[in-house]
Amino acid sequence: MKRVKLIVAYDGTGYCGWQVQPNEITVEGVLNKHISELTGEDIKVIGASRTDSGVHALGNVAVFDTESRIPGEKMAKALNARLPEDIIIQDSKEVPLDYHPRFQDTRKTYEYTFYNARYDNPVTSRHHHFVYVPLDVEKMKEAASYFLGEHCFISMCSSKAQVTSYVREIYECDVTQNGRYITMRVTGSGFLYNMVRLMAGTLLEVGRGKQEPQWVKEILASKERVTPGPKLPAKGLTLIQIEYPEDRENAE
Amino acid sequence: MKRVKLIVAYDGTGYCGWQVQPNEITVEGVLNKHISELTGEDIKVIGASRTDSGVHALGNVAVFDTESRIPGEKMAKALNARLPEDIIIQDSKEVPLDYHPRFQDTRKTYEYTFYNARYDNPVTSRHHHFVYVPLDVEKMKEAASYFLGEHCFISMCSSKAQVTSYVREIYECDVTQNGRYITMRVTGSGFLYNMVRLMAGTLLEVGRGKQEPQWVKEILASKERVTPGPKLPAKGLTLIQIEYPEDRENAE
Repeated sequence: MKRVKLIVAYDGTGYCGWQVQPNEITVEGVLNKHISELTGEDIKVIGASRTDSGVHALGNVAVFDTESRIPGEKMAKALNARLPEDIIIQDSKEVPLDYHPRFQDTRKTYEYTFYNARYDNPVTSRHHHFVYVPLDVEKMKEAASYFLGEHCFISMCSSKAQVTSYVREIYECDVTQNGRYITMRVTGSGFLYNMVRLMAGTLLEVGRGKQEPQWVKEILASKERVTPGPKLPAKGLTLIQIEYPEDRENAE
Repeated sequence: MKRVKLIVAYDGTGYCGWQVQPNEITVEGVLNKHISELTGEDIKVIGASRTDSGVHALGNVAVFDTESRIPGEKMAKALNARLPEDIIIQDSKEVPLDYHPRFQDTRKTYEYTFYNARYDNPVTSRHHHFVYVPLDVEKMKEAASYFLGEHCFISMCSSKAQVTSYVREIYECDVTQNGRYITMRVTGSGFLYNMVRLMAGTLLEVGRGKQEPQWVKEILASKERVTPGPKLPAKGLTLIQIEYPEDRENAE
């Protein structure tokens, strides 16, 4: 028996999110099916991040246990030959049997991308959110800087979130512009339900001049549920990577 | 009667190219249908560039004549309300009745985008070409520089091309890298059939170390049909813009 870790990338457009649901096509469900067919076992992967319907990923993480004789590092290639073209394993390796993708001290990085022009760009519209109103990137940068550090994010999560603490730490949060594309990139210890899409919606309100950057500071300081910017559409959001303690050790 | 000019953007994935063909869905065909429905006339647009099946555009150009009372500059919005989401008019305006989108001294800009990594990125795979072998961007830049100027491009076009001269002038040609994305951007007076995809394929051979940058110089100097790099897939190619004499005057 061995445990295999996968780095999973997907175009979320055609999926009802990560988590298996009855009568829906999900990333987790498709992985379970194809890994089970490859190994001849009944495989159920454990995912690190249960991304919502329509959200994309370059670096979600999943593990599964198998008796298969295929070496861990060969699993990516073997699975990519079977998976549909909108799910591509980026890497695979064997990890200790007690390795759990969720219960570790990770850093997650997400990007939310806007396309800011008079009309939408159909070539990339599956993975950006179109905004007609000209955005002030400098103000968005300032607003983003107030997310840095440890804060109570009770206003930046769906009221459906079932958690004991709303405190999360943001290590990096920046807004960059590349032509008509404006991207919020955020790295944190963890994110509440819908938190990144609400953060992006809050920066959008600042960028379009409806609010000043200081507004972000006030929302976080209130520590109670106040109304932030709108929850933006899933398609602009991509889970870029999840860094584990072992990745940081390797990098040092 | 007035003539209206449209700047047309499309995701080419679902289209059999620009030009109307029997029993195929084409960008021109869809435009004709929706403009005819909008104006109540039998409209046939004239396009500037008959892009191939699967090629994308941000700035193709089309004109049509109409008796409609909708002002030229309002056509974009009116059409975008009717068009499918993978075709979006970026701008519209009235032009002189003798304005022809093809028989003018234009500068066309194309981009060909590679994604260079161990495995493909499913989020953007509709508009890049995946390359597994690590590419040497500096060598590709040098190779691209040999395309600059006036050359006989007989080797860089499909043998199906029916033209009287293979001489074309390239004003700009550069290769840039943004993370795992490598983009060739080329501006010229005009391009032969399949020329950009063959230029990109030729740079690819240099980038992957199969040929040295000087090879581009030799192909162009030969002035006869020699074998260049492969014609790369349509999906990596986007027609970025077509500049007309009036655009340059406005910019000056």
